[in-house]
Amino acid sequence: MAVDLDSNPEWVADLKQIIDPKIVSTDDEIRAEFGTDRWHAMAMPAAVVQAESVDDVQATMRFANEREIPVTTRGAGVGYVGGCVPLKGGILLSVAKMNRILEINPKDGVAVIEPGVILNDLVEAVREKGWYYPPDPASLKECSVGGTIATNAGGPRCLKYGVTRHYILGLEVVLPDGELLVTGGRCHKNKTGLDLIGMFVGSEGLLGVVVKATLRIIPLPEARMMLTATYPSFADAAKAVETILDSRWQPSALEITDSFTLQAARDYLGADTLPEGEAHLIVEIDGRKDSLSTDLAALHQLVDATGAIAVDEARSEEECDAVWQLRREFSYSLRATGLIKLNEDIVVPRSKLVELVNFAHQLQQDTGIAVACFGHAGDGNIHTNLMVEDYETNAENRAKADAALDVLFRWIIENNGQITGEHGVGMAKKRWFKDAVSPVSFAMHRRLKEAIDPKGILNPGKFIDD
Amino acid sequence: MAVDLDSNPEWVADLKQIIDPKIVSTDDEIRAEFGTDRWHAMAMPAAVVQAESVDDVQATMRFANEREIPVTTRGAGVGYVGGCVPLKGGILLSVAKMNRILEINPKDGVAVIEPGVILNDLVEAVREKGWYYPPDPASLKECSVGGTIATNAGGPRCLKYGVTRHYILGLEVVLPDGELLVTGGRCHKNKTGLDLIGMFVGSEGLLGVVVKATLRIIPLPEARMMLTATYPSFADAAKAVETILDSRWQPSALEITDSFTLQAARDYLGADTLPEGEAHLIVEIDGRKDSLSTDLAALHQLVDATGAIAVDEARSEEECDAVWQLRREFSYSLRATGLIKLNEDIVVPRSKLVELVNFAHQLQQDTGIAVACFGHAGDGNIHTNLMVEDYETNAENRAKADAALDVLFRWIIENNGQITGEHGVGMAKKRWFKDAVSPVSFAMHRRLKEAIDPKGILNPGKFIDD
Repeated sequence: MAVDLDSNPEWVADLKQIIDPKIVSTDDEIRAEFGTDRWHAMAMPAAVVQAESVDDVQATMRFANEREIPVTTRGAGVGYVGGCVPLKGGILLSVAKMNRILEINPKDGVAVIEPGVILNDLVEAVREKGWYYPPDPASLKECSVGGTIATNAGGPRCLKYGVTRHYILGLEVVLPDGELLVTGGRCHKNKTGLDLIGMFVGSEGLLGVVVKATLRIIPLPEARMMLTATYPSFADAAKAVETILDSRWQPSALEITDSFTLQAARDYLGADTLPEGEAHLIVEIDGRKDSLSTDLAALHQLVDATGAIAVDEARSEEECDAVWQLRREFSYSLRATGLIKLNEDIVVPRSKLVELVNFAHQLQQDTGIAVACFGHAGDGNIHTNLMVEDYETNAENRAKADAALDVLFRWIIENNGQITGEHGVGMAKKRWFKDAVSPVSFAMHRRLKEAIDPKGILNPGKFIDD
Repeated sequence: MAVDLDSNPEWVADLKQIIDPKIVSTDDEIRAEFGTDRWHAMAMPAAVVQAESVDDVQATMRFANEREIPVTTRGAGVGYVGGCVPLKGGILLSVAKMNRILEINPKDGVAVIEPGVILNDLVEAVREKGWYYPPDPASLKECSVGGTIATNAGGPRCLKYGVTRHYILGLEVVLPDGELLVTGGRCHKNKTGLDLIGMFVGSEGLLGVVVKATLRIIPLPEARMMLTATYPSFADAAKAVETILDSRWQPSALEITDSFTLQAARDYLGADTLPEGEAHLIVEIDGRKDSLSTDLAALHQLVDATGAIAVDEARSEEECDAVWQLRREFSYSLRATGLIKLNEDIVVPRSKLVELVNFAHQLQQDTGIAVACFGHAGDGNIHTNLMVEDYETNAENRAKADAALDVLFRWIIENNGQITGEHGVGMAKKRWFKDAVSPVSFAMHRRLKEAIDPKGILNPGKFIDD
């Protein structure tokens, strides 16, 4: 799916006049490297600009706006939906080198960062001071904070702590015409005008280029502990989720895994890695060191009564880390099947978890394509993975898988679900976007895009365009 | 400050043709009643429409849009900034009668409401099921949920649980042209497109009329407990706030009160109501019943070590309610001084709490106007109350107070503060809005307003207009 729209157009020489030519690349290798993310699409930009400063970004945008050259912004390039693939060529604007943590300030409860900072570097630096930045997508060791802002990223801890949007206090954004918008700041509450921050968070590079962010950090819980449990069926595990929440617990994570994934894990890690059972549940709680054991014991009792086959406790940091490592291994196990994993981060109203998984298994029967479900049960955000042989090279398999995705997304939309919970729309979900939102909503998206980026130069070809 | 722009214009008869005439009022008394909120401004609308259905709202907006008649939406009318005062006359559209709680559904973790529902009715109905809707502005027994959405309302619990925006999963909004925008839904995570919900939450009636909302509800903490402490100085209490947060506590509320307010409380309630001290701190924690006592004991020890004069515990629901009642009495005590309270909900970076209060006391010395500070210390959101004699009737006092407010807000803006944390801009803060946001931000506000309400009919004369 590689596109090379116009290699070496004449404007590149002019671009090198207005910004340091050392940060502009037209090499095929670099253009290819920056033409993709973790999805399976690729498009060649005419030039890659690796910005090192706000000035670089502003100069690039002013230049592009004047000449109506497409600009697609890229952080670490590890998105799952082709969001930063420069579909219409033009300039690929990387902010990966703008990667300084400018300040971590517990007295104000803020961290100030450039967009290219790797999320885990921030999380660790904050944690060292006894503070906490909760958003924790699975890619946290690779993704940039700018990327998490572009996608309003989530993760397991969002159940208790909320998504990225809830942690952005201030933004500096270069607008399509090169102007710098400074909005919000370092205050923890702010009702001064419209929510411009919300406008840009999750806008997938369609409205502006984030060049600086002030993040809210919160006190790091003193301790966390976990339970893991296996169940005779997915329905039993989903019922346990309901029971836990209805018993006035606020877990910091509630993760569920289906039988297909567990089987892959047993195949990959060894049959005795996991107790018997057709579904797996992880419950994490956090709080004060002196009292959390009491809580865990009570929670253990509750979970025992939900019909679990086996319930294990993780009390120390190391034991908890081991559980999260196991959770990550589930994902690797699926990859180890040798099949291509089409990871769809769909969301359903929480009461429909079982219906979703039953539907997924029916889809597997109907299509012969294996479907593996696991994810954030507390949010109803279940990663539904279609496991496809040779998706990228076998046209027949690809067509079959794409047809299965159509069936899946139609079901999601008909059942009040959402087509993406945390990855974004990008290219991957564009096909279903119009059906997922109403015509009035789609028209509103257009109006906002036109108001902010009237020439349509930012990340063209994505979900707002036809 | 009463304005009556055009009583009984000819279009009123036409309006009565297209909606039920029984819900249209032109009586002076009703127009006056709906022409005000809790701020000290009033403007007479030409007609009051008391909508009973989405159809009523749509018909009204279609009519108004066609004829370019101003429409100002009103919930319970208890705002503090004149946000719903129909400054340009036209139609005052009340949604107070659209006040049904349509659904409370713990299985999905949602409540679905019409905008006129009184916030406390919702909170209580949710609590009865063992669930929790955290936003808790002081006006919760009087304000409508629609009003809290229009202002992105906060309250003490926002420190731990976040503001109203974090609890809105879905919205139905009638746009200026009468079209119904349905956005979001009942899923707890959603990255489908731009954040249209964020666009409308906190937009103070400038962009659309919310006619239905799907709210996120969370498990109700099993227990809460509190400490109250007095300190020799405000600086000591502020230092305690810092110590608590830096010791990895996540309190559900952290409220601070200054010496002027305490003196008013002692005068009003009796000298022995409160222990000795020049500042007062409230710390609330919540969690599990079996373990919270352990936590409270540890917190008590920590607070003892922060130099508190007296520390009291509240362990039962009743004792906690009594603390919150005392907290409310602080406000009544200020009113009981007989002075007019100009309540400014300003925010500072948390490290500047002491500077703010020192500045406020300096302002009192310089102007002779008493200044009382109390509020949400954990958020840096301090209600700074200028206590003015005969503000509404004495022009000299009014001019002096307005000049003092100018000095206060200039200081706030110069110190990276925000002019409003939870009340909104409305009319009250309009004077400082342009200085509080950058010219680029102001231009962006204009562009968004023009994109959504090109005729400028919704709530005209407020902060986006000159």
